[in-house]
Amino acid sequence: MEREDIEEKYKWDLSKIYHDPQDFYKDIDTCQSLLDQLATFEGKLSENIETFIDFLTKKDDLSKLINKAYCFAHLHCDVEPKNQDYQKMMATALSLLQQASVTLVYVDNEICKNDVKIKEFLKDNRLASYRYTVNNLLAYKPHLLDEQQEMLIAKVDNISDISEQVFDSLRLEFEDVEVNGQKKTLNQATLTEFLKNKDVNVRKDAYHKFFKEYKKFENTYATTLAGVMKKDAFYSDVRHFDSPLEASVFNDDVPSSLFFKILDKANNEYRYLFHRYNQLKKELLKIDDFYNYDLNIPLVKNVSQKLTIEQCFEIIEKALAPFGQDYLNIIHQAKEERWIDYYPTTGKRQGAYSSGSYLTQPYILMNFIGDYNSMSTLIHELGHSVHTYLSNHNQEFINSHYRIFVAEVASTVNETLLINYMMEHAKTSEEKRYYIYEQLENCVGLIFRQPMFADFEHRLHTMAQNNEPMSSKIITDLYAKLSQEYFGDAVKMDELVGWSCYYVPHFYYDYYVYKYTLGMTVALAIVKRILQGDQKQIEQYLNFLKSGGKESPVDLLTHAGVNPLDDAIYDDAFHYFEDLLNEFEKLSK
Amino acid sequence: MEREDIEEKYKWDLSKIYHDPQDFYKDIDTCQSLLDQLATFEGKLSENIETFIDFLTKKDDLSKLINKAYCFAHLHCDVEPKNQDYQKMMATALSLLQQASVTLVYVDNEICKNDVKIKEFLKDNRLASYRYTVNNLLAYKPHLLDEQQEMLIAKVDNISDISEQVFDSLRLEFEDVEVNGQKKTLNQATLTEFLKNKDVNVRKDAYHKFFKEYKKFENTYATTLAGVMKKDAFYSDVRHFDSPLEASVFNDDVPSSLFFKILDKANNEYRYLFHRYNQLKKELLKIDDFYNYDLNIPLVKNVSQKLTIEQCFEIIEKALAPFGQDYLNIIHQAKEERWIDYYPTTGKRQGAYSSGSYLTQPYILMNFIGDYNSMSTLIHELGHSVHTYLSNHNQEFINSHYRIFVAEVASTVNETLLINYMMEHAKTSEEKRYYIYEQLENCVGLIFRQPMFADFEHRLHTMAQNNEPMSSKIITDLYAKLSQEYFGDAVKMDELVGWSCYYVPHFYYDYYVYKYTLGMTVALAIVKRILQGDQKQIEQYLNFLKSGGKESPVDLLTHAGVNPLDDAIYDDAFHYFEDLLNEFEKLSK
Repeated sequence: MEREDIEEKYKWDLSKIYHDPQDFYKDIDTCQSLLDQLATFEGKLSENIETFIDFLTKKDDLSKLINKAYCFAHLHCDVEPKNQDYQKMMATALSLLQQASVTLVYVDNEICKNDVKIKEFLKDNRLASYRYTVNNLLAYKPHLLDEQQEMLIAKVDNISDISEQVFDSLRLEFEDVEVNGQKKTLNQATLTEFLKNKDVNVRKDAYHKFFKEYKKFENTYATTLAGVMKKDAFYSDVRHFDSPLEASVFNDDVPSSLFFKILDKANNEYRYLFHRYNQLKKELLKIDDFYNYDLNIPLVKNVSQKLTIEQCFEIIEKALAPFGQDYLNIIHQAKEERWIDYYPTTGKRQGAYSSGSYLTQPYILMNFIGDYNSMSTLIHELGHSVHTYLSNHNQEFINSHYRIFVAEVASTVNETLLINYMMEHAKTSEEKRYYIYEQLENCVGLIFRQPMFADFEHRLHTMAQNNEPMSSKIITDLYAKLSQEYFGDAVKMDELVGWSCYYVPHFYYDYYVYKYTLGMTVALAIVKRILQGDQKQIEQYLNFLKSGGKESPVDLLTHAGVNPLDDAIYDDAFHYFEDLLNEFEKLSK
Repeated sequence: MEREDIEEKYKWDLSKIYHDPQDFYKDIDTCQSLLDQLATFEGKLSENIETFIDFLTKKDDLSKLINKAYCFAHLHCDVEPKNQDYQKMMATALSLLQQASVTLVYVDNEICKNDVKIKEFLKDNRLASYRYTVNNLLAYKPHLLDEQQEMLIAKVDNISDISEQVFDSLRLEFEDVEVNGQKKTLNQATLTEFLKNKDVNVRKDAYHKFFKEYKKFENTYATTLAGVMKKDAFYSDVRHFDSPLEASVFNDDVPSSLFFKILDKANNEYRYLFHRYNQLKKELLKIDDFYNYDLNIPLVKNVSQKLTIEQCFEIIEKALAPFGQDYLNIIHQAKEERWIDYYPTTGKRQGAYSSGSYLTQPYILMNFIGDYNSMSTLIHELGHSVHTYLSNHNQEFINSHYRIFVAEVASTVNETLLINYMMEHAKTSEEKRYYIYEQLENCVGLIFRQPMFADFEHRLHTMAQNNEPMSSKIITDLYAKLSQEYFGDAVKMDELVGWSCYYVPHFYYDYYVYKYTLGMTVALAIVKRILQGDQKQIEQYLNFLKSGGKESPVDLLTHAGVNPLDDAIYDDAFHYFEDLLNEFEKLSK
């Protein structure tokens, strides 16, 4: 569909950001002038508290304006990529961002060097809102190097990302898969569909034709995967961290014990639940030789119906009713003020996201096609947008930005409330069974598969740190072995399973995958309590949404009633999964 | 053919290195002990001249022995790759080499730091033979960084070679080419054959099917090609060189003016000769739309006959007769003492090389199939081996190793003398025309194509140094434009020509290609004079072969009578090409 064919009310209204697009360039001019002023602070940051406050205020003003301008440009580009006016704005904003990062490169070092004075400044209540961020920066001092070495490292940054670039640039092509005598295109998007096919030959053929291409390029993928692990190990080493993991968790301001707790809970204590689920799948599907490429065969027929956007909002408002009217009013506002761009149109960016800035609304891009999945995506992105909205309205700019750790909680809580609502209000037991199955699959992806990925990634990082060889044979053998352990005895591993690790982009994101698990686990624990009518949990959760990033992820979550270092969270989450599994088993017999 | 089916006299005799293979391990033990001793010199190198001499002597002893052991292992592995005994020796030697480089990492820094004292030592005649090498090292002082930065750079080395690794790991597959209704395999080896086919459809099809695969992966290749240029620019920058070119020529101890002189001569002053040759090709082939994929069609039928090894040696000895009996005696020795492994056998390494060490003979690996090309390869490798033999017998170890710059002179002079002998002794004018054509093609590859590659590479390096964007579009547009300029108006460029740059491994070798041009140019100049009966040139040349690497490449060549900074060398070489072209044109009319 073309953009002009879509009704206005289903497209986002970006004129609220700049009514006249030329105002974009006025803000850019203001940014340029602020940046010039900020450059003059070099060497003076710790002179006196007034100067420091002046600097921080101007820096925030600059950030707010750049973010606003960037937001306007990138939202427009994502729906109208061929419009050269917006491309020019985008290039202008990116160039300014880069210029700012160069101009302000002195700041961290200067603050750390003068840490005693800066700590003294922080006692002043005028700097209260800056305490968390600046203290965080000061904690980085042991990892900052002298100026010459920092300059050298800045230059290394220019040449150290080849592995990710190559991985992103590789576009494999796959042989066609034959379904009922017809040749069909195999690619990353269609693979999942083939794996749902009832004919084992189609599933096996698709799996083989897909991963044999990865095997063909195994030495390239082994090079890039080992390359990115070595890169992480390099930075960890030169910045005096004990390990790549320690370097990664430092940036996220969480203890590494959190990583190990998640792995321990998912991979040791509760893995038997995943094995049990796989065993049940095998029994229900009545397949003797049950392979990993059989795991996606649907256990339940899709019963969801076509939904209009208006119907989705009706259901969403009911699902989120436990949060009370204030929360629902924001959802209402999102719809009425047109924060959302719903429909897929020619050239529009794929997928979905929530994106905004401190000076704009939190907009949502979707590719809505009216199925259950679209509704679930909508409530997910609304979770992010309400979180951003509440953070922006309750926190100073410096504390408004929240980390990925806590971000996924807000979206996943919403998704989980929705699917629970669907289960509760199912009209038939088959419908109920469908939503339970969907939720079991969701959970499996996030609380079992991701911890396995995290385990694999951690082993690779450790090998890189110890300068151990990382050939494709070593990498694929390891992945095959871990896969067998994780899926359990009910599932046989195909001979190509080892090469399927080369398909996962997340291994290039430096300990990213376990954050999905944390988000899901915490969300499940919260929802379990909300569904039990725990009013205190609801209040704590709403407060959490208003807290942005004013403290560390662990503190934020603890104040939300879900301390992620506490065993109870995991027990709640995995028991939620167990309850679902029990119910599903009962309904399936 | 299997190895045991080959007569002994056609296989090399490695028992001269170690009669009992277990002696290999005795030398390894000695090396280990020498290495332990060398470690104790840290901090003491400049204490007094006796200690310094003691250190240098022991270091040379170690190098000689490691090289001998490595030579034994790698020669054996190259002909019997499945023999685990030799694989173990190879791994042992490599591991020792790595250990040595770690243990001796302190040396360069310590010598540079104490440069005043070391320069004083060098005045002593006991150190005469070390002057060139040590002075070279001292000149590096401005490019050495402080210890912490050197340590950081050593760590960067571990992560900076991803581009080359990825390039080496990529193995593209190509669609079959149809020749007379039969499907034939297209790969890097068969492409040249297809491009010689008389049917334009075969040539065009092969060219397209080959380079369209490179286009398919263009973003990956652009990433790795830009990546390696950025890497070179990084090292040049952090080591305070003015440019990647300056960094590269510093390591080779030549002035950058040499690079520009070669480019200027080939790309400006004499390029009209290449254009003239292409125009002649077009006329002789009578093709109106003459494309770059038509350039390989043979202009002359191959008239060369099958040759035995003995026949080759007869011809070779006649071709090299101008050098006198001493030179021929070494050739004789190579044959009689079995330095050469002639025939292709199962698992044997492809191609040909000359390889030895100070304590062994300079062995030659070949894959002899009895055509003119085999004979030419044999005389080429004999050129290297005689050069090594004479250097080893006339220079101390420290000065015996010669650089790639001068290496290719010794081999190319021999090749050129051979083909001139073949022209002179051709029985028919068709035979003569064949050898002239072969030599014209040789020259084109080395004195016109390589300078174009060098020009392209230099532009990419400059873009990297200036942080300019290097997308595939920018790279392929540049290559297409340069190609058209170089080949001239007679040749039309196929639409895929821009992507053919992704096929060239040499762009990953940091200013390598222009060295081929220098080797060929100097060799042509030398041969032109030898053929004119210039006895002084012969004497100077033989002295050059005995000089190893005792001075800089420019000095070595100047003393050989061919100063590469002198215009006369290029004028001689390109006039040699012009004479050949004139004669070929005459014979073709």
